[in-house]
Amino acid sequence: GITLYEEGDKSLEIGGRLQPQYRLVDGDNEGADGSDSGDDFFLRRMRFYIEGTVTENIYGIWQVDFGDTSDDPEVKDAFINYSGLPMGNITVGNAKVPFSRELLTSSKRQQFVERTVVGDNNFGVPDRQMGVTYNLNDNDMVQGSIGAYQAGIDPSFSKIDFESRVSSDAEYFGNMVAGRIDITPMGAFKLAQGAFGEDTKFGLGLNAFTWANDDDISEGDIQNQFDSVNGYGVDAAFRSGYFSMDAGVQYFDADTIDGADAATGVVNEDGDAQFSTYLVKAGYMIVPSKLEFVAGFSALDPDDGFFANGENYDDMDKRYSAGLNYFFNKHNAKIQLTYEMGRDVLYTNDANGQVETPSNIGGDQNTLFLQFQQVL
Amino acid sequence: GITLYEEGDKSLEIGGRLQPQYRLVDGDNEGADGSDSGDDFFLRRMRFYIEGTVTENIYGIWQVDFGDTSDDPEVKDAFINYSGLPMGNITVGNAKVPFSRELLTSSKRQQFVERTVVGDNNFGVPDRQMGVTYNLNDNDMVQGSIGAYQAGIDPSFSKIDFESRVSSDAEYFGNMVAGRIDITPMGAFKLAQGAFGEDTKFGLGLNAFTWANDDDISEGDIQNQFDSVNGYGVDAAFRSGYFSMDAGVQYFDADTIDGADAATGVVNEDGDAQFSTYLVKAGYMIVPSKLEFVAGFSALDPDDGFFANGENYDDMDKRYSAGLNYFFNKHNAKIQLTYEMGRDVLYTNDANGQVETPSNIGGDQNTLFLQFQQVL
Amino acid sequence: GITLYEEGDKSLEIGGRLQPQYRLVDGDNEGADGSDSGDDFFLRRMRFYIEGTVTENIYGIWQVDFGDTSDDPEVKDAFINYSGLPMGNITVGNAKVPFSRELLTSSKRQQFVERTVVGDNNFGVPDRQMGVTYNLNDNDMVQGSIGAYQAGIDPSFSKIDFESRVSSDAEYFGNMVAGRIDITPMGAFKLAQGAFGEDTKFGLGLNAFTWANDDDISEGDIQNQFDSVNGYGVDAAFRSGYFSMDAGVQYFDADTIDGADAATGVVNEDGDAQFSTYLVKAGYMIVPSKLEFVAGFSALDPDDGFFANGENYDDMDKRYSAGLNYFFNKHNAKIQLTYEMGRDVLYTNDANGQVETPSNIGGDQNTLFLQFQQVL
Repeated sequence: GITLYEEGDKSLEIGGRLQPQYRLVDGDNEGADGSDSGDDFFLRRMRFYIEGTVTENIYGIWQVDFGDTSDDPEVKDAFINYSGLPMGNITVGNAKVPFSRELLTSSKRQQFVERTVVGDNNFGVPDRQMGVTYNLNDNDMVQGSIGAYQAGIDPSFSKIDFESRVSSDAEYFGNMVAGRIDITPMGAFKLAQGAFGEDTKFGLGLNAFTWANDDDISEGDIQNQFDSVNGYGVDAAFRSGYFSMDAGVQYFDADTIDGADAATGVVNEDGDAQFSTYLVKAGYMIVPSKLEFVAGFSALDPDDGFFANGENYDDMDKRYSAGLNYFFNKHNAKIQLTYEMGRDVLYTNDANGQVETPSNIGGDQNTLFLQFQQVL
Repeated sequence: GITLYEEGDKSLEIGGRLQPQYRLVDGDNEGADGSDSGDDFFLRRMRFYIEGTVTENIYGIWQVDFGDTSDDPEVKDAFINYSGLPMGNITVGNAKVPFSRELLTSSKRQQFVERTVVGDNNFGVPDRQMGVTYNLNDNDMVQGSIGAYQAGIDPSFSKIDFESRVSSDAEYFGNMVAGRIDITPMGAFKLAQGAFGEDTKFGLGLNAFTWANDDDISEGDIQNQFDSVNGYGVDAAFRSGYFSMDAGVQYFDADTIDGADAATGVVNEDGDAQFSTYLVKAGYMIVPSKLEFVAGFSALDPDDGFFANGENYDDMDKRYSAGLNYFFNKHNAKIQLTYEMGRDVLYTNDANGQVETPSNIGGDQNTLFLQFQQVL
Repeated sequence: GITLYEEGDKSLEIGGRLQPQYRLVDGDNEGADGSDSGDDFFLRRMRFYIEGTVTENIYGIWQVDFGDTSDDPEVKDAFINYSGLPMGNITVGNAKVPFSRELLTSSKRQQFVERTVVGDNNFGVPDRQMGVTYNLNDNDMVQGSIGAYQAGIDPSFSKIDFESRVSSDAEYFGNMVAGRIDITPMGAFKLAQGAFGEDTKFGLGLNAFTWANDDDISEGDIQNQFDSVNGYGVDAAFRSGYFSMDAGVQYFDADTIDGADAATGVVNEDGDAQFSTYLVKAGYMIVPSKLEFVAGFSALDPDDGFFANGENYDDMDKRYSAGLNYFFNKHNAKIQLTYEMGRDVLYTNDANGQVETPSNIGGDQNTLFLQFQQVL
C-alpha cells in the first residue's frame, strides 16, 4: 500500500494485488470419454483496497476482489477498527476469524501458489466472517485474539465450507466464537511465509472455535445444514536466515441438523462428521532473496472415510507439493511455480471447468500452477 | 472525503462509508409454523467514491456501493457536473431526483438507522435516476432544482418502487420531470439530521414530480406496469442548538396501464393507486455532540386500503421509533441504535431472509437496528 | 489520470471515465405489432483505474467498468508490465490483443460515439484477452507487438464474438497468437482519433491472428463452437492540422467444430464462415479544438451471405454515419452526437431492450447517439 495522505487524524492509503494464474490439471481418467486434463489462464485475484480515517483512534478498510472466475466482485476486508481502549483494539465488520496460521497469512505472502487444506475454507476453516474481534495489544512473546461472529455456511456435506455473509455462497448462519493465541518465545514476527535473511524465530499457535446454527433458515428452504461445528488447531512456524518451515494440524467435529438419510461426503450414517487436516512445508532460498525452493505435504483424513457414489473411500487425501519462487522484490513482485501431486484425492480440481472428465474421487490428480504477482 | 490533489484545474478526492448493521426482527406470528423472529449481521453499506476533474468548470463523481445483501455492487452517484453557466450548474448522469428531504439527506447523516417511508424509494420517492438536473446557484434564502429523467420502476403493485437505469431492478421506464424549492428564511443549512450546537435555522421544502410510461416495453414482456405516477410533498426542518426536528407529508397518485384485473396491493379495482406518507421526528443531544436521543412517528396510508390475500386492510401502517446515537466524531464515526414498533404493517421485514415466518400484513412487527459507521 | 505519488520506485496514479449516453433507435417495422423505435439513457461506461508500483521496472494496472447495462462490473485492463528487458517490455494478464487500430484506440478517444464494425469484438476482433504480450521498444518509425493468449468466445454463429476469460460471456477457449506492426514514416503518434492542430502524420498498420480451440470444453456442454478463427487486417491513419482520417479492412476465416447441421448466421452449409469488414471515416474541426464534424462509412460483408429465418441475406450491411463533437477540453470533456443510418443491417440494435420490434435482418435501422464524457 502507498500512503497518499497523513496529517493529524486524517490518513489514506491505497493498495492492490494482481495475480494472473496459469493452471494445468491432469487426472487419472485416461480411459474415460473426454479428456482428463485441461488448463486455464485466469485472474486469480485482482484486489484493491482503501484504508483510511478522519477520526482519532478509528480507521476503516474497504477491500474488494474482482478476480477469480465469478463475475461478482467479492468483498474481503471491510471493517472498522477502534483502538481507543486501554489495551488492545476492536474490529467490527467483515474480517478474518482468528483460526489457522495459513489462512491468516495473506494470499500474497504464501510459498505455494494456493493455500493447502489447512488454510482452505472448504474444510472447516472459518475464513472471513461478519463479527466483532478483540485483539490484544501487541506483545513480543504472546499475541491473542478472540471474537464473536455470525458465520455462514455454503450447504454441502462433502465439505464444511464457511462463507461470509457478504458472499452469495453463504446460505445459512450460526453464532461462532473463536480464539487464537500465538506464542513467540524468540520475539514476534510477521505472518509471512518464506525467509528473506531473517533472525531465528519460532511461533506456536493454538486456536479453536465453536459454531451453532441459529435456526433462522428452515431445513425446508436450505437442505443439508450442519447443526454445530467445532474446530481445533495447532500450528507452528520457524524462520532462520533463508530457511523457513510451517506446520499445522486441525481437527473438526460436526453434527447435522437431523441426522442424515444416508452417509454422504464427510458425514457418516449417524449424521456426524469428523476429520483432520495436516500440513508441513519448508522452503530455502537457493539464491538469497531471489530464488526459493519449497516442498510440502498436506492431507485430509475423514475419521469414517468419505462417502460418494455408494462407496466409502477410506484412504487419506494426500498432496505432495514442490515449487520454485522467483522474487523481483520480495512478495511485492514474484513468479511462483508449484507442482502438486494428489493421491487418493477426495476433492478434485477441474481447472475452473476446463477439464471434461476430472479425476475420480479416490484417484490421482496432478496440478501445475504458475502465478505472476504484483502488489501495490 | 480526503482531497489528495488540487492544483489548477486538476483535483481528486476519495471517500467512503462503512456501515456494519445488526438487525433483529420480531413479528406477531407466534402460533405459526416456524419462528416469527430472526436476526442478521451484514454490511448495510460499503461505498467508495472518487470525485475529480482535469477540466475547468467540470467535475465527475464515481460512487459505488458493495454493501447490502446483493452480490452485485450498485452504482450510486455517477454524474458529470458543469458549472460554467452564468448562474447555477447542470448535472448529467445518475443522481438524486430533487424530491423528499429525507432521501436527499445522505444515508450517513440520518438520525435513525434506516430512512422512513417518506425517504424510501419503495413508496413513490424517485431516488437516483439517469437524467439532467439544473441546480440554481446557492442563495441563502431560497434554493431550487429542476430536472428531467428517464426513470425506471421495479414492477409490483404492492408498492411504487422507483429504481435507476443503472440498477438491475428497473424493468420499465418513463419520462419524469421533478422540481424542488427550499425556503430557508434564517439562512441556508446543510442536509444533515441532528444538531451539533447550531444556530437556529428553519427550512421548508416543496417538491413535486410527474412520470409517464414511455411505452418502450410491452405489457407482454413486463406485467404490472404503471402508466403514470404523480408525487407531491412538503417537508420542514428545524435546528437549534442541540435540538433538531424534521417532518414531511407526501401524496402519490398513480394509474396502471390498462386498469387491473383485480385490486392488489395499493392498486384498487379501478386500476388506480393513491396513498400518503407521513413523518415527524425529533432529536436532542443529551450529552452535547456525544449522545443523542431521537424519537419519531411515520406512516403509510393508502386511500382505498391495501389489498392482499383477498382482503382489504384499511388501517394505516404506523411506525413508532426511538433511538440513541453515540458520536465519536459527528457523522464521521458513530454508533446508532434504533427500535421501531410497527403496527398494522403493510410492508414487512424478514431480516434479509432470516425470519422463517415474517409478520402478517396488517399485523405487528418490532425491529431493533444497531449500526456502526465510519466515514472517510 | 492524476499522479498522486511518485518517489523512487513507488508511484500511484488514479483515473476514470464517465459516459452517460442517450440512444434513440428507429427501425423499419412500422407495420408490425409493437413500436419499431425506442430510446434509452444509460451509463455507457463508468470506469476507474489504479496504476502503480512499488518495484523497479514493474507496474500494474487495475481497471474496472461499472457502466453498461449489465449489473456485473467488468474487468478491463488488469495486467503486470515488466520493462527490465534489454529492449521492449512484457505484459502479463488481461490486456488488448494487438489487432485493429480502432479497437486499440481508447473508447474515450473515438470520433463516433460507438466503435464501428472494424473495432467491435462481435465481428472477429479479439478485444482484451488473458495472455502475454511483448511490445517492441518505441521507435519513431516502426512499432510492433506480438502476443500469445488463451482467448475465449461467446457461443453464437451469427457473429464471431471474442470475450476475455474475465468476462462471464466467454464460454470456450483456445490458443491465440497475434501480432501487429505500425509503420509511421513521418514519426510516431498517439492512438487517438481527431486532430487538435497537429503536425502531418501518417500511419499504416498490419495485423493478423490465429486462434485454435483447445478442446477443453466438450460440444455437449457448449454448442456452436468454432474450431479455428484466423483474422487479417490493414488500417491507416492520417492527421494534419485539424483534419484526420482513418480507414481499415479486415478479413476473417473460421471453421466450426464439426461442420454445421444447417447454414446459420455467418456460417455456411459447409460449416465455414468468411467475412470482411470495412471502415473509412474523416473529421475536420470547424472551430479549431472546439467543434468537429465527422462522417464515415463502415460495412460487414459475409462471403456467402447471412443465414437467418430460412433465408440468405446477400447484401452487405452498410452504415453511413455523421456526427458533431463539441470539446470542452479535448477528449477529457466533450459532448458527441452521432447519427448512423444502417442499410441492409445484419446486426440490429434494440436500444438495450427498449425497442419492442427491432429492425428485421436485412432491413434498415437508424440510430441517434448523444454522449457526454468526462475523463479523469
